[in-house]
Amino acid sequence: MKDTFCVANFVRPHLLEVAGYVPGEQPQGGKFIKLNTNENPYPPSPKVLAAASDLGERLRKYPDPSATAFRRMAAQVLDVSSDQIVCGNGSDEILAMIVRLFLGPDDLAVWAKPTYLLYETLVRLQGARFQTFPYQSDWTLPNELFDSGAKLIFIANPNSPSGTCFDLPQLRSIIERATCPIVIDEAYADYAGQSAAKLVQEYPHLLVSRTLSKSYALAGLRFGYVVANEEIVAHLHTLRDSYNCDAISIALATAAVGDQDWLKDNVQRVIAERQILESRLAAMGMSVQPSQANFVWCQHPQHREREIYQELKNRQILVRFMDYGSPWIGLRITVGTPQQNQVLLGQLEQILKSYA
Amino acid sequence: MKDTFCVANFVRPHLLEVAGYVPGEQPQGGKFIKLNTNENPYPPSPKVLAAASDLGERLRKYPDPSATAFRRMAAQVLDVSSDQIVCGNGSDEILAMIVRLFLGPDDLAVWAKPTYLLYETLVRLQGARFQTFPYQSDWTLPNELFDSGAKLIFIANPNSPSGTCFDLPQLRSIIERATCPIVIDEAYADYAGQSAAKLVQEYPHLLVSRTLSKSYALAGLRFGYVVANEEIVAHLHTLRDSYNCDAISIALATAAVGDQDWLKDNVQRVIAERQILESRLAAMGMSVQPSQANFVWCQHPQHREREIYQELKNRQILVRFMDYGSPWIGLRITVGTPQQNQVLLGQLEQILKSYA
Repeated sequence: MKDTFCVANFVRPHLLEVAGYVPGEQPQGGKFIKLNTNENPYPPSPKVLAAASDLGERLRKYPDPSATAFRRMAAQVLDVSSDQIVCGNGSDEILAMIVRLFLGPDDLAVWAKPTYLLYETLVRLQGARFQTFPYQSDWTLPNELFDSGAKLIFIANPNSPSGTCFDLPQLRSIIERATCPIVIDEAYADYAGQSAAKLVQEYPHLLVSRTLSKSYALAGLRFGYVVANEEIVAHLHTLRDSYNCDAISIALATAAVGDQDWLKDNVQRVIAERQILESRLAAMGMSVQPSQANFVWCQHPQHREREIYQELKNRQILVRFMDYGSPWIGLRITVGTPQQNQVLLGQLEQILKSYA
Repeated sequence: MKDTFCVANFVRPHLLEVAGYVPGEQPQGGKFIKLNTNENPYPPSPKVLAAASDLGERLRKYPDPSATAFRRMAAQVLDVSSDQIVCGNGSDEILAMIVRLFLGPDDLAVWAKPTYLLYETLVRLQGARFQTFPYQSDWTLPNELFDSGAKLIFIANPNSPSGTCFDLPQLRSIIERATCPIVIDEAYADYAGQSAAKLVQEYPHLLVSRTLSKSYALAGLRFGYVVANEEIVAHLHTLRDSYNCDAISIALATAAVGDQDWLKDNVQRVIAERQILESRLAAMGMSVQPSQANFVWCQHPQHREREIYQELKNRQILVRFMDYGSPWIGLRITVGTPQQNQVLLGQLEQILKSYA
């Protein structure tokens, strides 16, 4: 056996072709000003850290399989029922579960591009099909999205990399046009000050995914959740790992969502800095898309974004260079602390002047 | 749309039929002596708790996607390469990833029964097929396991609920008979004082899954890993969620595996109590299977196990009643602290006397 065994003969054929998702750079050492993966520039609520107590006993035992404490707290904040919530390891696991629930080998998923790159990876991993349609130039949705025969639609709202956001009346009309399950990915929704979560009570085909990685400053915690009607929720509970969230994560996530004062204050600080970043970038001649998230999408008039990214990296500043094909080549810059943003803007100004 | 939408029309058909895995009871309140889910009766190493420092900054940022620190530490302990390790949220997520890697809709997985019930759930969730063959009466493997045309074989070693264990020479001959990927699930292997992990260097079709939930007293942490050859590892990295393990879990798991002195001491304490439990249960007339894990599988001569389970539960003692069909109906009792075991044995003695 051992001399003739060929792994590739046993790996599912479609998986031999999948490249996997490539996350943004996560240098584990060094002193980078890290504005490339939309982390919160501030630490999480002190109440989160205070919740990390009595660890020994909580670690020894299995966690509550369905994270009841968190679901109750989030339900209260979003004004939905705790039976309409399923938790996961970041919204990434939530999105993967949704794909596994709805997409068989021949089923089609669709989304407008450019958007979160993980959708494509997840659909490929599932061995399902996908089709993408370009956003219109004003970042409204292409009509083809709704006439594709898809079994699943993804919409990131606010969208990345654009930072654009549909308001709730626009979302309603989008949801009503969908004839299959539709995921509104609200990773950045706290920065837009809105959520479609409550709409699951009206629309049985709506799933709203949310994460604590951005607005709650808990990217390291891996905690996300989905809000959907009770029937979809029951199926998601069936297919998730029975203890998918750990005891510390559940406790800390519950404390985080319980501290809405901290959230509002933190969001306001990020928005205030975002506005400064946007206006300073525009003043330097960058083309800036007004953002409702915690990042800014901008382009250089001569499209020297890749060089700018590298120049900034040489100066220990990481931003995200993104090339989705023309016209979507640009820099996605996470809003940092005022001090980080000043350093970024100062260095960027030097770089742009050197191009003049 | 909203009035005519039927969730069941969009859920993948095979998922409508899956019941999902039912974990052992996890009462979140009450004062149960909890001997039903094979948790460690002692808290984890103090070094684990000490590693829970500097949380704010670690939570704010995304974790290391591949848990490098943990992989290096575990590789050193097991004398394998860190490139032969993939981490997950408990070995449950590891097992799910393995199923997704190897089993397509028509593919067959096999195992001897009775064993860990999750294998069946995972294969059903994947929409694949499974076949089980009864263990022989001496808990050796049935020959049919190797002639089934399977694409994947699971063997829990030590096995649950029996607590029996194949030694390394026996395992070698089992692995050599397999003509497809074979998973040795070592959830309880530290209690047997052995591991097949190093054999991955000889056998490219071997995957050894391990967990920190039992011997490291970290059931609440959800941390497991698999050891396999580099080619399988590369595929597992592709299909796992890009940040599947959170920053705290990685730090605490690394500290746990780094404290082998604590592990040895803790394992010895559990084994000493297991021996007491085994001999006392036998002295009461229970039929006891000698165990190499942290639990004991025992049967009542008149098969009144279900009543005993309920009587114990009424007295705030949880053990696991398991009915895999005759002759595998019994109680699986986790080894507790000396004090917990004394309470259990005292109550059990009363119950058994009442039957006499």
